[in-house]
Amino acid sequence: MTGFTLHPRLEADTAFVADWGLSRVLLMNDARYPWLILVPRVADAVEIFDLFHTDRAILMEEIARASTILKSVSGAQKINIGALGNLVPQLHVHVVARSAGDAAWPGPVWGQGTAAPYDDASRASLIARLVNAR
Amino acid sequence: MTGFTLHPRLEADTAFVADWGLSRVLLMNDARYPWLILVPRVADAVEIFDLFHTDRAILMEEIARASTILKSVSGAQKINIGALGNLVPQLHVHVVARSAGDAAWPGPVWGQGTAAPYDDASRASLIARLVNAR
Repeated sequence: MTGFTLHPRLEADTAFVADWGLSRVLLMNDARYPWLILVPRVADAVEIFDLFHTDRAILMEEIARASTILKSVSGAQKINIGALGNLVPQLHVHVVARSAGDAAWPGPVWGQGTAAPYDDASRASLIARLVNAR
Repeated sequence: MTGFTLHPRLEADTAFVADWGLSRVLLMNDARYPWLILVPRVADAVEIFDLFHTDRAILMEEIARASTILKSVSGAQKINIGALGNLVPQLHVHVVARSAGDAAWPGPVWGQGTAAPYDDASRASLIARLVNAR
């Protein structure tokens, strides 16, 4: 995992949650949706097929784990998963808790409206719940 | 894989490409983007965490394979992957070939504009290239 550096745009838009086996787990600073981003700590990965087979399997398990945690913490109706990277090339996977009536429902969250940043206390409280969830 | 039936909305919007180990592979009938959809042939799966661990690993490899094929056939700049399911609950994974200047670039393809159906010959030709790609 030598040479991994978080892309400055991801750094700016998120708060640190945890480092799992493969991925850095980040909370998107947008209170409209409980929204995690998984960034495999692998230098120069852009597409899923840039990862080794073994890392892909780990990433899939980390996506499932993030989905389970978000569903448990938020009570969301549906989990949305996306790996786009049209603007930020560093491989990253969005895992977003969606519910009918949220700001973009039933459309995708990407590119919709303007982020509503958390206040410090709400962000800290949510991160604590995410870290302690199973 | 008992009890699997393709959701009628997916049936209506796509053409059959192949059955891989886990997933039915479909071509979205939208010539704006080379766009595959993988549908695990598992009854009642909605979220990634509804699949068994072993099926998740296979799905990830099938996503990588679909991405490689689309990149090879289309020369796309970026592959976009998404599992949303806000409208069609049956678990399905979009794998979309994107390029700067396409109809939704750099935004997501979902919910953008109106599909541009293939004519029969173009669709058949693309499916043949996808099936024969490595």
